[in-house]
Amino acid sequence: MTRWNIAITGFGAIGKGVAQIIQERRQRYRELYDADVRIVGVCGSRAGLIDHNGLDWSSDAGLTLRPGETGPGFVQRAQADVLIEAGPTDFETGGPGYTYIKEALSQGTHAICISKGALVFDYAGLAELARANAVQLKISGATSAALPTIDLLQYNLAGCQILEVEGILTGTTNFVLDSMMSGMGFADAVIEAQHLGYAEPDPRFDVEGWDTACKVNILANAAFGACLKLQDIPRDGIDQITPADIQRWKAEGKVPKLVGRIQNETGNVRASVELKTYPFDHPFARVDATMKAVRVATDVMGEITVMGVTGPSATAAAALKDFEHLLIADVHCMPRAT
Amino acid sequence: MTRWNIAITGFGAIGKGVAQIIQERRQRYRELYDADVRIVGVCGSRAGLIDHNGLDWSSDAGLTLRPGETGPGFVQRAQADVLIEAGPTDFETGGPGYTYIKEALSQGTHAICISKGALVFDYAGLAELARANAVQLKISGATSAALPTIDLLQYNLAGCQILEVEGILTGTTNFVLDSMMSGMGFADAVIEAQHLGYAEPDPRFDVEGWDTACKVNILANAAFGACLKLQDIPRDGIDQITPADIQRWKAEGKVPKLVGRIQNETGNVRASVELKTYPFDHPFARVDATMKAVRVATDVMGEITVMGVTGPSATAAAALKDFEHLLIADVHCMPRAT
Repeated sequence: MTRWNIAITGFGAIGKGVAQIIQERRQRYRELYDADVRIVGVCGSRAGLIDHNGLDWSSDAGLTLRPGETGPGFVQRAQADVLIEAGPTDFETGGPGYTYIKEALSQGTHAICISKGALVFDYAGLAELARANAVQLKISGATSAALPTIDLLQYNLAGCQILEVEGILTGTTNFVLDSMMSGMGFADAVIEAQHLGYAEPDPRFDVEGWDTACKVNILANAAFGACLKLQDIPRDGIDQITPADIQRWKAEGKVPKLVGRIQNETGNVRASVELKTYPFDHPFARVDATMKAVRVATDVMGEITVMGVTGPSATAAAALKDFEHLLIADVHCMPRAT
Repeated sequence: MTRWNIAITGFGAIGKGVAQIIQERRQRYRELYDADVRIVGVCGSRAGLIDHNGLDWSSDAGLTLRPGETGPGFVQRAQADVLIEAGPTDFETGGPGYTYIKEALSQGTHAICISKGALVFDYAGLAELARANAVQLKISGATSAALPTIDLLQYNLAGCQILEVEGILTGTTNFVLDSMMSGMGFADAVIEAQHLGYAEPDPRFDVEGWDTACKVNILANAAFGACLKLQDIPRDGIDQITPADIQRWKAEGKVPKLVGRIQNETGNVRASVELKTYPFDHPFARVDATMKAVRVATDVMGEITVMGVTGPSATAAAALKDFEHLLIADVHCMPRAT
């Protein structure tokens, strides 16, 4: 049985969701991968807890975090095999997550990223650090949760030349646009999205298109080896939309969507965030409030369109999909059976 | 540089397409995976050719096959690292492909299957043989080409409990149904599908639902560890549809689709092929003549729907997606960088 120790940095709703699913799947990990998976450390912004034998989740009250067990050094003290970074997104400095991920990769710990900040701030640097230490940098949780994005580009379409990627990647904006087309006002729709847990704490991050811009930025750099910076990405938002716009689109039989685009013209990779309208019979027109979607154009596999739901449990599940990929790769690398 | 020798059994349109794409991608394989990929053997039903240094594709006339270089023993003589099986589908006996795949797995050669016969005939036996010899049995090319199916279930949704799979998996039936809804007669639509290269040589295989039944059979056994036989799968076809049916569906605003279904009720896996009708606003209603689609319901990731195009180049590309997954796994298994 192989021991897998996991540390979680950022212990809000999503971090706790990750921990809960891991606990629920421990038996599955044992049976499928002969893996003894334990959470050996968690930390938030002010407190945390480390137990190298695995944290005790038996108490109904949950974990009692120790003030100060956080910040630089937490990752070294936890000495996990895998770090799952679920802190807040700060794409201007990378935030604490950037430090955690660098600490992890440098010491030979795989990093699974849910927060986008560090990846937007310095994907290339982190990817190079991962390569140098022969560990993985996984990003599914940061690039649209349950919707396959990076794995669609790198795995399902392996071998294809990818010509274009277009995606409805932000749950909030899709929900707000859908609600506005149904007659709700912009402000009310944003509040509703926050109630439903789609919106980031600061809704401007979503409605001004930053969330989608971050995701296409990460995808372009990770899947196409581009070196785009956030400021290289022209960005529409949905906060300027007027009732007159809504009426006009309805009259034209069009559906508005905020989409992230990546265009790959052999070597020249461009990304953008665009407010586009689609006719009712376009697949994207049917991607309603609670869904996300991505369309990929390739050379030999034509076009693939994927639609999926959004939501917090899906984000945690996406990070654990990344973890399961580490387990699968590990099993494939087992010595030849005799 | 790692040497990868490939043998191709079944050298019709798809086998030749596979060979062509491999030749086009040799430089890519070198750059991305440090892999020197060569085709060392090909064979059809009556002739073949083996060159352990790699076959010479420089002549415009193509390869001159040697009569008799085929059948049992070909795989041992080719001594490839990877077998790509692209022969005709015989799901009653497994056909020659079954022998080729068994020979390959037994000698430690990975097997990538495009033809469905051997997988339907004895998936469990072949999977066990692959495990015992620590090689991979890959099936993307046999389960709906460019449309992600087995990799969607095993990779994109890794960790999820999969509750139900429903798919439009056969290009021919989808094309014929679409054409009939547009006013074309059944027989003419089948001939048109054959002209376009969707239909199997014997159209009954498609229109009687066998093709879809084979695909859900393989997927149920591969992704859910079921032990279903083809005769366990209730099967509708589209050959009994009357003009009156078409008129009624139009009047009801419904769209007919032949779908394969897998239902997984914890331990109890059932599969079926059903002629179902969908309202115009259902995603499947928009999956037109040239497309396929699959919808998967999960526990923590909700529902994912994927739509893709069909066609011969997509089938060859799917087999080479499987090959690329072998290369990716191999790179991941490289010793730690220093």
